[in-house]
Amino acid sequence: MDALAQRTFNSGDSFIVDFGNHYTGYLAFHVGWSGKSSDAPVRLRLTFGEVPGDVAEPLYPYKGWLSASWLPDEIVNVDFLPQQVRVPRRHAFRFVKIDVIATSDNFSATFSDISVGAVSSAGVDRGRPARYDSPLWRDIDKVSIRTLHECMQTSFEDGPRRDRRLWVGDLRLQALTNYVSFGNHDLVRRCLYLFAGLQRDDGYITACVYEQPAPRIGEVVLIDYAVLYGSILLDYYRATKDKQTALELWPIAKRQIDLALKNVNEKGMFTAPEKDFVFIDWQESLDKQAAIQGVMIYSCRQLTALGDVLDLSSETDAYAAGIEKMIRAATRDLFDARQGVFISGKNRQVSWASQAWMALAGVLSQPLAAASLTKVMGMPAAVRPLTPYLYHHMVDALVASGARAEARRLVEDYWGRMVNAGADTFWEAFDPQNPSASPYGSKQINSYCHAWSCTPSYFIRTGFAKTKGDK
Amino acid sequence: MDALAQRTFNSGDSFIVDFGNHYTGYLAFHVGWSGKSSDAPVRLRLTFGEVPGDVAEPLYPYKGWLSASWLPDEIVNVDFLPQQVRVPRRHAFRFVKIDVIATSDNFSATFSDISVGAVSSAGVDRGRPARYDSPLWRDIDKVSIRTLHECMQTSFEDGPRRDRRLWVGDLRLQALTNYVSFGNHDLVRRCLYLFAGLQRDDGYITACVYEQPAPRIGEVVLIDYAVLYGSILLDYYRATKDKQTALELWPIAKRQIDLALKNVNEKGMFTAPEKDFVFIDWQESLDKQAAIQGVMIYSCRQLTALGDVLDLSSETDAYAAGIEKMIRAATRDLFDARQGVFISGKNRQVSWASQAWMALAGVLSQPLAAASLTKVMGMPAAVRPLTPYLYHHMVDALVASGARAEARRLVEDYWGRMVNAGADTFWEAFDPQNPSASPYGSKQINSYCHAWSCTPSYFIRTGFAKTKGDK
Repeated sequence: MDALAQRTFNSGDSFIVDFGNHYTGYLAFHVGWSGKSSDAPVRLRLTFGEVPGDVAEPLYPYKGWLSASWLPDEIVNVDFLPQQVRVPRRHAFRFVKIDVIATSDNFSATFSDISVGAVSSAGVDRGRPARYDSPLWRDIDKVSIRTLHECMQTSFEDGPRRDRRLWVGDLRLQALTNYVSFGNHDLVRRCLYLFAGLQRDDGYITACVYEQPAPRIGEVVLIDYAVLYGSILLDYYRATKDKQTALELWPIAKRQIDLALKNVNEKGMFTAPEKDFVFIDWQESLDKQAAIQGVMIYSCRQLTALGDVLDLSSETDAYAAGIEKMIRAATRDLFDARQGVFISGKNRQVSWASQAWMALAGVLSQPLAAASLTKVMGMPAAVRPLTPYLYHHMVDALVASGARAEARRLVEDYWGRMVNAGADTFWEAFDPQNPSASPYGSKQINSYCHAWSCTPSYFIRTGFAKTKGDK
Repeated sequence: MDALAQRTFNSGDSFIVDFGNHYTGYLAFHVGWSGKSSDAPVRLRLTFGEVPGDVAEPLYPYKGWLSASWLPDEIVNVDFLPQQVRVPRRHAFRFVKIDVIATSDNFSATFSDISVGAVSSAGVDRGRPARYDSPLWRDIDKVSIRTLHECMQTSFEDGPRRDRRLWVGDLRLQALTNYVSFGNHDLVRRCLYLFAGLQRDDGYITACVYEQPAPRIGEVVLIDYAVLYGSILLDYYRATKDKQTALELWPIAKRQIDLALKNVNEKGMFTAPEKDFVFIDWQESLDKQAAIQGVMIYSCRQLTALGDVLDLSSETDAYAAGIEKMIRAATRDLFDARQGVFISGKNRQVSWASQAWMALAGVLSQPLAAASLTKVMGMPAAVRPLTPYLYHHMVDALVASGARAEARRLVEDYWGRMVNAGADTFWEAFDPQNPSASPYGSKQINSYCHAWSCTPSYFIRTGFAKTKGDK
C-alpha cells in the first residue's frame, strides 16, 4: 500500500490490489491527485475478483446464462479530489482491479488507504481443532471455515457474490458446519422461520427465499430441497435442544414430506412430478430417478427421528410402511445386483449421485452400500458430480457406510485440489477434469465462495464419524 | 409518467424522459419489477442531456480534448427491487435516457416516480418586465434567466454540467444579470472573496478557482480576466452600496491592474506576456493584440471609476497618463483610418473582438466607434466571435456607442437563433454558421447551459441603455 500511494495513474492505467484473503463487504479508498490541477472528475472501473481470473481475464464479452447484472464490476465517478470513496454496494472479493478510465491532461490520480469494511454474522470459530493430521487438512479446514464465514450474513447465503440468497440445500450444509464452528444458532433459527413464513399456497416451501428489500417467496420448488427441511430441523434440535422451535416448525417439516409422498406411486417408486423439480446436482447428464428415491427415504427417516425426539411418534408411525415400500422398490427396480450398483432411469445410468443417496437412505446393508460407493468411484463411465453439494453427500454416504478412509481420501482429492489451486474459499462448482466448467455457460459468473462447499470442516471436526443420533 | 409506469423493460430496452425544462440537481426514480421473480440486480445506464442530441446521439466514441470523465453518463446497479434510487451526483439536464443493460430472464424492470431534486441559490426573479416587445423577446429573457438560475449554486458556476466552476469572466456577466433579476448579492460577494482569498504568489488572481472539496487556486492567469476584477467590484458596489466590502477588496482589484500594466511598453502598447495568457474568445484564429489593448484601457477606467466612488482618487490619479498613452498607441498603431476599423497583429487582422473592446475602452468618439462596429459586422472576412461571452461584449459595445437598434438586432440574431432552435438555456458556444462547433473538438462535451450566455436579460431589463455610472 505504501508503494501504491507513491504511484500516479493516468487515463488507461490500472492496478490490482490483493487483500490476501476473501472478504465480503464494502470497499473504501482515498483518491488524490498530483500534477497541475485536478480540474475534472475522475472516472474509475472497479472489478472485484474472488479468484485471480476474475481480474486477470476480461469480464466482457459475457455469454453466460445468468444475468449480466451479477458481473462484479462498477463504474465510479469522483467529482472532487481528493475524496474518500466508499463503494455503497456489498461485494465479495480478494482482488480489486481499478482501471482509471479518465482523469484529465492536467492531473494524475493517486490511491491510498484502500480498505474493506468486512461484514459477517459468523462471530468466533469456537470449534477449531487443536491439531490436524497434516498441513493440507489444516488448510482444508481453514478454507472451509472461511467459506462459511463469508456466507453468514443476515441469513445463510449461498454465495456472497451471487446469488446472496438463502437456499434450503445450502442452509442444511451450512448449519451442520456452523454447529462445529461458529455456533450461531440464532441465524439457523431465523432461516428456518424465513422458509416457514413463506410457503407456497399448497404448503411447499420454495427452494430459496429472498430477504431484501422485504422477505419474499422464491419462484421454484425443488422437491429434494423441500423434504430435507425436516432434516435441517432435526440437526438444529440436536445442536440446540430448542424444543419450542422444533415443535412450532414441525408441521412445516411434516407437510413437505406429505406433499412429496404424493409423487410416490403404489409400487413405492418416486415418479417425476408435473410442475416441480428435483435438483440433486448441476451435472446436466445426470438421471435423477434413483437419487430422489434415496432422498425420499432418507428424508422420511429423518422426519421420523425428529418425531421421536419430539415425542410425536404417533404422527410418524404411519411413515414406516411407506419407507419399507420405497426401499423395496429401490432394491427391486434400481439395484443392479450383478454390477453391485444402483442404476437410474430407462438407460440404467450409473452415477455417484444414485449410490450416495441410496447409501444415505440405508437401502442396503452397510457393507453393500460401501461396496457400491467404492465401485462407482472406480467406474470411469459413471456420472460424476459437478458440485461440492453432491460431493458432500458422497463423503457423507461413505462415512455412513463406514468407509472412513475413502471419505477422507475423497475430501483430500476434491477439496484438497481446490486448496492446492490456491482457493481461499471453496467454489460453487469444481470439476477436476475441467476446471473452467460452469453451470451457467461462463466461469465469469461463477461464485468462488459458495456455502455448499464448506462441509469438509464438518467432517474433519466430527472425525469422519457418524454423528450422534444418526441411524 | 403514468404511461411509463405501465411499461416493462428488459435487457437492451431504453427510454427517454423529458422534464420539459433544464434542471440542475439530483435524479430520483423508483425501480420495480414484473414477471416471475426479481432474482438478480438490475443494471442501468443513465445519460443526462441538456439538449436532445445528448441523448439521441451516442456519447461514444468520444474524441474531444476535455476529459471523458465529464461525459454525462452513469452506470447504476440496483441490487434489490423494488427500490427507490437517488443518483448521488448532481447532473444538469432536461432529458434523461435510461438504458436497461441487464435484468434477468425472470423479470422486467418498471419505472415510476421519476423526479429531479433541483438545486439553485438564485431565489425569486424580482426583475421580470411587465411586458416585452414581442414573444421572441419574452423567450430570450426567459431562457437567459433560466441559464443564470441554473448556474447559481454555492458559487456562480460557468456551467452546471461542466466545469461547475467559478470563473472571473463568467462571474462578471452573471453578476450584471443577477442585479436585474435575482438580486442575490451575497453570492457575488462570496465569489469576490473566493478569488481574493486565493491569489497567486505574485498577487494575480487566477482565471478560475475551485470550491470542492476545499477552496483551491486555479492553474492559469488570464490577464483580461484578472484586470476585470475591478469592474466586477465596481458593478457590485453600484448594485449594493456595500462600501465596506469594496474597500476591503480594493487592493486586490488595484493589484491586478498594476501587475498587468507591467506588460505595457513605453509606447503604451500591451505586449504578449511571458507566462500568462489572454482569453477574449475561443475563436482559434483570433489575433488578440487589439482586443487586450482595449480591455486594458477599459479596466483602468473602471478601476478609476471605482476609486472615485470609494473616495480613493488619490490612488488612481496616476493611471490617467497611462490610459492616455494606451489610447494614443491604439489610435496610432491599431486603427486603420482608411477602413475605419481597428486591426490586430502583424497580419492586420480585422475582427469583431478588436472593435468591441476598443469601443468599450472609449478609444474613439461614439460615432466613430459605432461606425467601426457596424462596419465589421458587414465584413464577411472579419473574424467573428465563437462564444456568447464575446457576443456580449459586442452588444455592450454597440450600446456604449449609442447603436441601440444594432445591439437589439444582434441579440435577436444570435441568442434568438438559439431560442428558435429550442434552447431552454443558452449555450457555451454557438456559431450560427456551424451549429455543431465545439471549442473542445466534440460537441458531446459542450455545455448547453453556460453562464456567460445569460446577459440578454441584462440588456433587455436595462433597456439597451448605458447603465448608471458608465462613462
